[in-house]
Amino acid sequence: MKLYTYWRSSSSYRVRIAMALKGQGYDSVPVHLVKGEQRSAEYGAVNPSNMVPTLELDDGTRLTQSLAIIDYLDATWPEPPLVPADPLLRARVLAASLIIAADTQPVTNSGVVSVLKGEFGVSDKGGIAWMVHWMEKGLAAFMASIRGDTAFCFGDAPGLADICLVPQLYNAHRWGVDMAPLSRLTEIEGRCLAHPAFAAAAPEVQPDANT
Amino acid sequence: MKLYTYWRSSSSYRVRIAMALKGQGYDSVPVHLVKGEQRSAEYGAVNPSNMVPTLELDDGTRLTQSLAIIDYLDATWPEPPLVPADPLLRARVLAASLIIAADTQPVTNSGVVSVLKGEFGVSDKGGIAWMVHWMEKGLAAFMASIRGDTAFCFGDAPGLADICLVPQLYNAHRWGVDMAPLSRLTEIEGRCLAHPAFAAAAPEVQPDANT
Repeated sequence: MKLYTYWRSSSSYRVRIAMALKGQGYDSVPVHLVKGEQRSAEYGAVNPSNMVPTLELDDGTRLTQSLAIIDYLDATWPEPPLVPADPLLRARVLAASLIIAADTQPVTNSGVVSVLKGEFGVSDKGGIAWMVHWMEKGLAAFMASIRGDTAFCFGDAPGLADICLVPQLYNAHRWGVDMAPLSRLTEIEGRCLAHPAFAAAAPEVQPDANT
Repeated sequence: MKLYTYWRSSSSYRVRIAMALKGQGYDSVPVHLVKGEQRSAEYGAVNPSNMVPTLELDDGTRLTQSLAIIDYLDATWPEPPLVPADPLLRARVLAASLIIAADTQPVTNSGVVSVLKGEFGVSDKGGIAWMVHWMEKGLAAFMASIRGDTAFCFGDAPGLADICLVPQLYNAHRWGVDMAPLSRLTEIEGRCLAHPAFAAAAPEVQPDANT
């Protein structure tokens, strides 16, 4: 398999964690978001949203959208399960995951902030304030939506909510979100970062890191 | 069941369509987003994101996030299925749905646009340009991600992608998105709007319409 990815893209990071948890290897195909490689016609033919990640299966089939890709991985390689089977538990895990993957990350991603600054006259400092505002709101809602008494977000092993959380916290640290009221999240983050699958997926160990 | 909803909220509209397709009745509990009722401490205890929709089951259990709620409905009342069981088809339907539910709607919702105008100095006209920009981008990517030869997005019956599409088009029409390049979508929309479940879920027939 091939994964079109960018080291600092948090939705790519989610898929990298899921692939590592499932023990699936892949070739990384870096798409440099800051240089605008995602906007090329060639990459638009790979992913009609001009976004990363895209997972290309061995038969050439391409899958887009991190949560859809992870759903496919969970159906195809069931162990370890990333989303529980019970409908109610499943709805809770999906709801927490979507607080990050729908309400927080898309509002603060580099493409949105670049339009905010380039076309709507917001300053660099304003762009950072925008990201911090939505991350603080999203992470607080996320914390209120997970369990309070488990090693990971919903149990004793990492799952989809943890996969969404860790890349979002990477961004939160980068942009200066105050984590003091969110200690439950940084505790979970510490356990995740000590896990080999999360370590292998980390931005700084990707082939395109710091390019 | 009770559904906390707002007539013009497109994520509430998605859940209303899904409930109607599944033949499940509910009591509407209107939360007036323009009056700010979602920001009350009382509603924050119902939904930690201070957003609609929230589905309250008969035993008092509350579910949030439209796609998580619809996943629960599909697991609990399997007919008609809203997402296919085959992993690859499922990934395609989820990817298209997330192009709207993650990349488009959260970036253009009323809360985000209100912060854009109130705290980042963007004009009313700029707020509309912002919404139109992301809706045009999202709808074009959505159109490239669905099938080209079916009555609905992925087959001969409506499913999750159609449930995401119709409320997004309600917003697109409202804010003046040019639909000329998107005729495949308006054709599907016409078939959906003629379906009784979509008709029952429409904003203008909700108890809180035009309040």
